[in-house]
Amino acid sequence: MPIKFEILVEDKVTRARAGLLHTPHGVIETPTFMPVGTGGTVKGMTQDELEALGVQILLGNTYHLYLRPGHELIREAGGLHRFMSWPHPILTDSGGFQVMSLKSLGRVTEDGVWFRSHLDGSSHFLSPERAVEIQMALGADIMMCLDECVEYPASHERLERAVSLTTRWAKRAKLSHREQFERLGGKVPGARCQASGKDGANSGLRDASGLGPDGSLPKSPDTGHLTPDTFPALFGIVQGGTDKELRRQSAEALLDLDFEGYAVGGLAVGEPKSEMYDTAQFTAELLPRDRPRYLMGVGTPEDLLEGVARGIDMFDCVMPTRNARNACAFTSEGKVILKNARYARDDRPLDPSCTCAVCRRYTRRYLRHLLVTGEMLGAILATHHNLHFYLDTMRRIRQSLLFGEFAEFHCRVRARP
Amino acid sequence: MPIKFEILVEDKVTRARAGLLHTPHGVIETPTFMPVGTGGTVKGMTQDELEALGVQILLGNTYHLYLRPGHELIREAGGLHRFMSWPHPILTDSGGFQVMSLKSLGRVTEDGVWFRSHLDGSSHFLSPERAVEIQMALGADIMMCLDECVEYPASHERLERAVSLTTRWAKRAKLSHREQFERLGGKVPGARCQASGKDGANSGLRDASGLGPDGSLPKSPDTGHLTPDTFPALFGIVQGGTDKELRRQSAEALLDLDFEGYAVGGLAVGEPKSEMYDTAQFTAELLPRDRPRYLMGVGTPEDLLEGVARGIDMFDCVMPTRNARNACAFTSEGKVILKNARYARDDRPLDPSCTCAVCRRYTRRYLRHLLVTGEMLGAILATHHNLHFYLDTMRRIRQSLLFGEFAEFHCRVRARP
Repeated sequence: MPIKFEILVEDKVTRARAGLLHTPHGVIETPTFMPVGTGGTVKGMTQDELEALGVQILLGNTYHLYLRPGHELIREAGGLHRFMSWPHPILTDSGGFQVMSLKSLGRVTEDGVWFRSHLDGSSHFLSPERAVEIQMALGADIMMCLDECVEYPASHERLERAVSLTTRWAKRAKLSHREQFERLGGKVPGARCQASGKDGANSGLRDASGLGPDGSLPKSPDTGHLTPDTFPALFGIVQGGTDKELRRQSAEALLDLDFEGYAVGGLAVGEPKSEMYDTAQFTAELLPRDRPRYLMGVGTPEDLLEGVARGIDMFDCVMPTRNARNACAFTSEGKVILKNARYARDDRPLDPSCTCAVCRRYTRRYLRHLLVTGEMLGAILATHHNLHFYLDTMRRIRQSLLFGEFAEFHCRVRARP
Repeated sequence: MPIKFEILVEDKVTRARAGLLHTPHGVIETPTFMPVGTGGTVKGMTQDELEALGVQILLGNTYHLYLRPGHELIREAGGLHRFMSWPHPILTDSGGFQVMSLKSLGRVTEDGVWFRSHLDGSSHFLSPERAVEIQMALGADIMMCLDECVEYPASHERLERAVSLTTRWAKRAKLSHREQFERLGGKVPGARCQASGKDGANSGLRDASGLGPDGSLPKSPDTGHLTPDTFPALFGIVQGGTDKELRRQSAEALLDLDFEGYAVGGLAVGEPKSEMYDTAQFTAELLPRDRPRYLMGVGTPEDLLEGVARGIDMFDCVMPTRNARNACAFTSEGKVILKNARYARDDRPLDPSCTCAVCRRYTRRYLRHLLVTGEMLGAILATHHNLHFYLDTMRRIRQSLLFGEFAEFHCRVRARP
């Protein structure tokens, strides 16, 4: 399989590590933050600008791209990389999170989930196999299994059912993913991953039906733009809310399926910060050392630091981009709400300690004017700064790891007022 | 006065010329196109991007800046250049055009124009002196006289009244402008420009009252950020619709006041193209050879070429930027309406002959997706391309002039289907 994870440094005090994630479209330095490019674009940023910011991997939202322009149109363009002219790594989510969090949710069944488009109310069906198929059309470097993400708080029974369904769906996704890979001539290394393997550790796959909702075999998509060398890796998603026993069950079942990476899902949905950190750490400890660990939908700059300290390698969050459009900037002195009247005559840079293109050129006075008057440039500049702040935070975290100074860095940042 | 116009080449066949306009914030190669930066920003473009595109001068809208953030806030920041971090030339309009074309118009009187803000309905008064005062606070390189721009079609009487009022306002603006300049220690060269001059050619100024609408002397604004060396030049605006006799009267009266440059106003308001071209040429011929000529609010790429052929040096228009936001691109093959379904699967660049950053990186398929889904990046990329197209058109026009090939270039472009 095309991705390879290489650990360079492991911190001696915390669970943090720094590494390299090799993908078909380039090497990602981990820990890494993935800006969210919802509909094939990080809102307000050009691809040139993302490159200049040092973005190494983007996240694409399958739900949005499936609805518009449609995954077939993207496959036809040669996949998402070529469609949006982003020749660097991309990770796509399964679409499940949007389907279940947007009010469009129809019904979760054993087969998959029926949902209505938030655009025109049309009815659609997403199954584990279909999520793989759509993501193959997008052709990212990493794709995600369809999972059931549960709201917080939720009953133990509700969480247990979601873990169980997520496990069954993960098996179906894994099988579908492997079949497509082999159909393209890909060779699956090692016994643990054979579709017809007799290895006990793989037994989970044998009872997966792999059938579509109407009992038919999943339709084989045209994968002309993919080869075994560019085939997207598949990550499993551990669920279980903040329940450690359920997290353990979920992780063990997924480990059995031998994914190329593992995500911690179902967090940052409203639980207290301390529980989020505890659960992330507990779950990360259950996952194999040699696979990348991805904490989905997290979080603030502090969350990145705390997540890394707990053994997380990958993060994504809309916060730097969405908050920017709402005139909220992340700075070394905390959040700056740029529409605030106090900035109307403030000729300082947004963040006096920042070296980004925005802080080098523009004042708070000007940024406030742009955001108050709804000028596009306000959102553009605030987004640029926020992404720079996130990426720079992660770069400093990684540097401290490479220099063996992470624990000290961690303490120093936590001690800030 | 700080601006200086230098003619490098005059075409032997047409009225076209190429030159250099020296301003306090840099040299502008003429003929030039000025992108419109309405509220202190060219919508969707960063200042870095404008520089990379080769923009040499921006137009700022006094009406919009006066209302938000307010000219006092901009003066306090050190003027518009510093406020928006654009250290290159800027021209500001007088605000009159917006006041009279937005439905907010209250009433035109001899003193000036009462209007209501389109934002909150508040009542404001703009006089020739007030327009100078506000524009001094903005501190551009070139400012414009308040004029009365008449709709098309209009009666001869209506046009005549507007020419007459525009002339009286021009005198008041000129006097106010000169007083402020001298107050800062500026020396007015030559007899023609002395406020108390005894020269006959200057007699027009003597009867200008220079009084505000309430009969008081215009309030002296704080001009701390201006010096005689950075003091904005003042351009007069010729009115008269498509009536040649009125144009002549208007031009002669303004020439008497000896402005540092002259604009042709009141065109591109609905008259036929041929009349616009005729009037521009007729008016340009009335203007002194050694002063820059500015055709306001014009136009299409073809209009630039035809305007230059008729002796125009400067142009501004919202078309490249506004059309871009409406998904209309200018290309070497004509207009491309990017939301059209025919581009949904079109993997060609927007303009195959274009070398801009957008055409080198993105497909029509992608641009259409962005514009159909309302993504900011769609407007950003289309604006970038359109501005490149306009600036490149002007560069090619200027090159042909410098190489003595303008007439040939003009014929060749006009012969295109």
